[in-house]
Amino acid sequence: MPSTLAAGVTVGDLGETALIDRIHRRVPPAPDWVITGIGDDAAVIEPARGTLDVVTTDTLVEGVHFERAFVSAADLGHKTLAVNLSDLAAMGATPRFVVLSLVLPATMAAADLDLVVDGMLTLAGRHRVALVGGNITRSRGPLVLGITATGAVRRRRVLTRAGGRPGDELWVTGTLGGAAAGLACLQRDPAGPAAGDSHLAGCVEHYRRPEPRVRIGTLLGRNRAAHAAIDLSDGLADGLRQLAQACHLGAVVDGQAVPIDVDARRWFDANGLAPLDAAVAGGDDYELLVAVPRAYRRRFAAIIRLARGVPITRIGELTKDTALVLRTREGDRTLPAGYEHFKS
Amino acid sequence: MPSTLAAGVTVGDLGETALIDRIHRRVPPAPDWVITGIGDDAAVIEPARGTLDVVTTDTLVEGVHFERAFVSAADLGHKTLAVNLSDLAAMGATPRFVVLSLVLPATMAAADLDLVVDGMLTLAGRHRVALVGGNITRSRGPLVLGITATGAVRRRRVLTRAGGRPGDELWVTGTLGGAAAGLACLQRDPAGPAAGDSHLAGCVEHYRRPEPRVRIGTLLGRNRAAHAAIDLSDGLADGLRQLAQACHLGAVVDGQAVPIDVDARRWFDANGLAPLDAAVAGGDDYELLVAVPRAYRRRFAAIIRLARGVPITRIGELTKDTALVLRTREGDRTLPAGYEHFKS
Repeated sequence: MPSTLAAGVTVGDLGETALIDRIHRRVPPAPDWVITGIGDDAAVIEPARGTLDVVTTDTLVEGVHFERAFVSAADLGHKTLAVNLSDLAAMGATPRFVVLSLVLPATMAAADLDLVVDGMLTLAGRHRVALVGGNITRSRGPLVLGITATGAVRRRRVLTRAGGRPGDELWVTGTLGGAAAGLACLQRDPAGPAAGDSHLAGCVEHYRRPEPRVRIGTLLGRNRAAHAAIDLSDGLADGLRQLAQACHLGAVVDGQAVPIDVDARRWFDANGLAPLDAAVAGGDDYELLVAVPRAYRRRFAAIIRLARGVPITRIGELTKDTALVLRTREGDRTLPAGYEHFKS
Repeated sequence: MPSTLAAGVTVGDLGETALIDRIHRRVPPAPDWVITGIGDDAAVIEPARGTLDVVTTDTLVEGVHFERAFVSAADLGHKTLAVNLSDLAAMGATPRFVVLSLVLPATMAAADLDLVVDGMLTLAGRHRVALVGGNITRSRGPLVLGITATGAVRRRRVLTRAGGRPGDELWVTGTLGGAAAGLACLQRDPAGPAAGDSHLAGCVEHYRRPEPRVRIGTLLGRNRAAHAAIDLSDGLADGLRQLAQACHLGAVVDGQAVPIDVDARRWFDANGLAPLDAAVAGGDDYELLVAVPRAYRRRFAAIIRLARGVPITRIGELTKDTALVLRTREGDRTLPAGYEHFKS
């Protein structure tokens, strides 16, 4: 079967077996711990020695998590994997392999499916994640991309949400608000920002291709440098609320310390939104929120040095009092509510 | 939050957090090898000592794999898990845990989601499979239920599709054609067979609630009693073709030996279909096809004795010649084509 496609060929034209073949040919040789990969009833994997399996699943649905007008097929493949790798990073786990669930409208261009797979495999290659199996289904409904990702972490290095203690410092990776500004910009104009507008282009890229904090998660998991972590898929407000709740604690966040993306800040300002509130409530940044005891500060500082230019910023601390306080120049107030995906 | 629901409450009314809570409360206590279960960024699992991880994913899509008119919500939960456990059984693996991906129309009754989860958990409980995590998403499209299942098998006990040798006997569990007859019957009358028609009721039950051959798969994986195996999700013709192809072999199947479900045979006869062809081509039976070398016959006979009443029937053998031959009283012919899901 040729790997080039006649124009207009849809996934429905090719059928399941041909689609699996197409995908299989795009996948690089598997690492030697993949005993049986794509093409059998199930994949067989040798566990990493002395580690626990860390497993997560996340699915992106057309019309809910993305519009095909806003994001390319390659972005989609990237993003579906990124959100899963972000969850593993938030457990301190090193990602190892994924299985893929594709629910495809029969009218989808087969070339677009290639791009989805390539977008995913490019990110997978960067983090040495193996695609070991999956499933393809047709659908009369929207495109649904699901990934289940498995990573490894040593037993006493797991970073749950619940391990935080009062007085632990709260640190956040990267910057916040970029993806929210990028999405808002795309919602106004699906074509994206004008070519000259490099500021907004960064925010849009942030939204379309979030960078999961795999390296930092792996370093955290190897070095016992934190008590707890969570990824900020639904924003800082939501993530902090969930982490604090799991710890039965509260938190104080210093509004001035929150690392707001500079381009996003400019966009929020120009559009009459309070940058701090928008950045704290906005989702899709896929940064990590980490609770670090003072006793681990040195080890954590070593991780910051190894983070290859990703800023890691202290934004507050966990408190015995279960309130969630945002400290601003105008005084203390309650952290704004996060965003709940499901409710429409 | 009360666990009883006011009439008419939809999953969209409840929202993601409340739905996860509802599911969480239905899940029995996790085994002690589940270090972190539902409610964190990912689940953390202790691998079974000395085994490999076996991972599979399968997704059922409304309008493609099922119609809600034909199958109840509880059936759906059962079936989605069953098809995954069947894949693990076909690798000789003992199932351990699953993660769940739910893509729900916002209009779905919350009570139906409870039934889906309960249907799944009932089957999971019977096979000691732990639900350790998952993901819920709303959708404007059809209901999509995805499961990724992980099992364990010892290294030299993995049953791939590719291990068969010329002369290996082909054995099949259970009976064939029941699910196909059940589906055909439901397609004529979604209400199902009349109350007095216990024959067809069995076929319909077979279609709605396939019984994955977990015990036999586990026994095969523990006892090195076979060279290769595959599950017959898409029928014997399709499964045998795939197994033979993976082995670079062919096969001869004795048509008279094929264990056709007696009620299905009656239905096929009454409806002008050749029972053998219908049973061989029909999917959804989720039986196992196993290639057993003569040297393992004793060990395999021991497994048959331990199969708790599930018939296991010899239907033919693998051949050097790559043809796929169906031997009937009327002479030899090529095995009919199987069913390919994707093409519409």
